[in-house]
Amino acid sequence: MTISNEWRRDDCSVQRALAILGERWTILVLREAFFGKRRFDEILDGVGCARNLLTDRLATLVEHAVLERLPYRDEGQRERFEYRLTERGRELFPILIALMQWGDRWVPAPSGPPIVVEHRDCGARVVAELRCADGHGALTARDTLARGKAARRGTKRAV
Amino acid sequence: MTISNEWRRDDCSVQRALAILGERWTILVLREAFFGKRRFDEILDGVGCARNLLTDRLATLVEHAVLERLPYRDEGQRERFEYRLTERGRELFPILIALMQWGDRWVPAPSGPPIVVEHRDCGARVVAELRCADGHGALTARDTLARGKAARRGTKRAV
Repeated sequence: MTISNEWRRDDCSVQRALAILGERWTILVLREAFFGKRRFDEILDGVGCARNLLTDRLATLVEHAVLERLPYRDEGQRERFEYRLTERGRELFPILIALMQWGDRWVPAPSGPPIVVEHRDCGARVVAELRCADGHGALTARDTLARGKAARRGTKRAV
Repeated sequence: MTISNEWRRDDCSVQRALAILGERWTILVLREAFFGKRRFDEILDGVGCARNLLTDRLATLVEHAVLERLPYRDEGQRERFEYRLTERGRELFPILIALMQWGDRWVPAPSGPPIVVEHRDCGARVVAELRCADGHGALTARDTLARGKAARRGTKRAV
């Protein structure tokens, strides 16, 4: 991905995604959202960061429409807000699963994976797999080519 | 993922993966590696961060055996080092592809995706898909359940 006249670094979709997701703690906030946490204190408890940092990360995710902020009121309490994944946010799930499976395999906790994600209908383990639009898979990096104006020397075998 | 007696935050595989990958710029260093850059100055040119920062990120990735550092010598030059993905590193590709496809879809560059990754054998576009071990897919977050000691209330539908 060398820089050329036609190519600007911030055109890269990875970089554009990381501009939203790449701050420390953000992925952990999303992890909590995917596993059903909606309220500030629940998320805080799961993530374990400072309150003001969580406030900041939630604001960024709402600003970029990854989470939406909705009012709720427990009986006898003042109105508060909870955070729910939008469609745009739910589509981040493959990133989370891909991180989780790499971690499970290469940096496992001594006590084993604390979470296993299963297919709701059949109970089999869920994995993030690379496939092509013609249905071939699972692919590895070596099965792929990178093409486009930012790829080095036109067409380049990845890895 | 509430904390209980049996569960420690740093047992989470997402968190353990992010401990290696989560520093700013690290994913962009890996992007360069996946698209064929091996030498310090090539990677630096692609990533656009400060030299000392790249030195630091490369050292971390070598320390965690994501990249290996190998000597090379151009004619008439002193020995230098290049960086290559290990097996452990190559298995990060689904994370990169998942980030890229989310970016392509939700935060596209006005000029379109600068890189398209294709299946080498058939030329069809490569996607990161969630599937289960029994072959069902593509799955979304709503098709899944999170199970395990860190899931809230035992079994929990994600999202």
